[in-house]
Amino acid sequence: MIIDGKVVAQELRNELKLEVQQLKEQHNITPGLTVVLVGDDPASHVYVRNKIKQTTEVGMISKEIRLAQTTTEAELIELLHGLNHDHSVHGILVQLPLPKHINEQVIITSIIPEKDVDGFHAMNSGHLLNGDAGALVPCTPQGCVILAKQHLGEDLSGKHAVIVGRSNIVGKPVSLLFLQENCTVTIAHSRSADLPSLCRQADILVAAVGRPLMIKADWVKSGATVIDVGINHITNEQGKDKLVGDVDFDEVSKVASGITPVPGGVGPMTIACLLKNTLRAAKQNL
Amino acid sequence: MIIDGKVVAQELRNELKLEVQQLKEQHNITPGLTVVLVGDDPASHVYVRNKIKQTTEVGMISKEIRLAQTTTEAELIELLHGLNHDHSVHGILVQLPLPKHINEQVIITSIIPEKDVDGFHAMNSGHLLNGDAGALVPCTPQGCVILAKQHLGEDLSGKHAVIVGRSNIVGKPVSLLFLQENCTVTIAHSRSADLPSLCRQADILVAAVGRPLMIKADWVKSGATVIDVGINHITNEQGKDKLVGDVDFDEVSKVASGITPVPGGVGPMTIACLLKNTLRAAKQNL
Repeated sequence: MIIDGKVVAQELRNELKLEVQQLKEQHNITPGLTVVLVGDDPASHVYVRNKIKQTTEVGMISKEIRLAQTTTEAELIELLHGLNHDHSVHGILVQLPLPKHINEQVIITSIIPEKDVDGFHAMNSGHLLNGDAGALVPCTPQGCVILAKQHLGEDLSGKHAVIVGRSNIVGKPVSLLFLQENCTVTIAHSRSADLPSLCRQADILVAAVGRPLMIKADWVKSGATVIDVGINHITNEQGKDKLVGDVDFDEVSKVASGITPVPGGVGPMTIACLLKNTLRAAKQNL
Repeated sequence: MIIDGKVVAQELRNELKLEVQQLKEQHNITPGLTVVLVGDDPASHVYVRNKIKQTTEVGMISKEIRLAQTTTEAELIELLHGLNHDHSVHGILVQLPLPKHINEQVIITSIIPEKDVDGFHAMNSGHLLNGDAGALVPCTPQGCVILAKQHLGEDLSGKHAVIVGRSNIVGKPVSLLFLQENCTVTIAHSRSADLPSLCRQADILVAAVGRPLMIKADWVKSGATVIDVGINHITNEQGKDKLVGDVDFDEVSKVASGITPVPGGVGPMTIACLLKNTLRAAKQNL
């Protein structure tokens, strides 16, 4: 069974739209997301366009601030301080990557944790690690858990989740989210011995390594749920650019009971969860 | 082989003593640790006495502040604000547990992260999760990794560490530390299915659940390294109180290649690592 991220993301956005409507009616608050884009990275422009479109579709206020490639770190920090104090702005997102002369870590720390809808600020990472209620959690990991639940139901307790990859953006936070769901969690990576047999233990297998088609059918237990976070560009036999995940979808889909495709799996969930975080940030303001 | 925490902790304290001496000579700074104790918990008084003794033995300045059981949360916060601004204080530790009318989370957050030598502040948890260099890391987890390295050598890369228990104080942070050491990491807990066979995969098995003698010999792979964080009081056959770990030491020690005893294993490492954090906090001040 294919777990359709587009459908699940649309359902989530429909729910968010209703909640945004309620927040307006009951508290006269319209959640606002401000996206800051520095420089001319073409891929970033596409992402930002999608974010803005979906933000307005659920009834939130979307603002976009475009800055020149030559913007200094100090200028960007000053802008963020202003947004931190702007009560109409509930979520702030600085589109990554930033130009090389700007330190990303410094910028992430310049957004107050309460408006850090990417969930990258160390305070939010700490709240996630400690299981505190107030955490704004990174978006892609949230999407992975929602998709797993879409296939397996709400109760993931006791299932063995094997996460391949240990990045700060996906691998580590998604491990903690499955741990919160009472899963046994194994974090594997490039230094792990016998990766295939670790993966074969998984009831839920999350691939987040950025290696095209790495996970093969004989790495996957029959009936497992497979969440593919990878987004890799490869050149196919016709010499054309093709988007593939970290999982060999054609083969693994014969073994897994549920699997997310690439594209159309985890990808669409990321922006939907960004909007979820923005709504949450707006509600915490009440 | 028994991994002797008392010996390893003494060696660490000897190293720290030299570093403290150097810091005095080169920068005229003497690291200072202030311990705040609220109320009359007898066990806490024993811990605090040990901390003070060891702090002064390595040449640091030890201060103890005792407050009445009736101290309010606001009074304690005001005290901590003063210590936050006191340049002679590099590390602040509020002995837990606190009286029930004081919110521990609020108190932990009232210590600035730079002086939070327990490593419990959300900023330090976040830095640990993200692998940032500046983190002050909880003491007991640090002790576990040092003891594992004592037996296995510095390079733990590729080893499978299985952590039983997922507390904020031990299970989760120790998992992240072994991940930083390039181990494959499995976090198991009370909801895990087939705990024995999960444990049997471990090259390094860390027991941190608080269940006396839970880990049996047939849960342990031959030649594994076993780190026992449990401290449990039981009544032995003679009706006397006895301290035991989470591991059935007598049986498991026949299977493991290295094992920490209780008492005398992880316990002594905790204070030594607290002093390590205090030195680190003092050096970050340079």
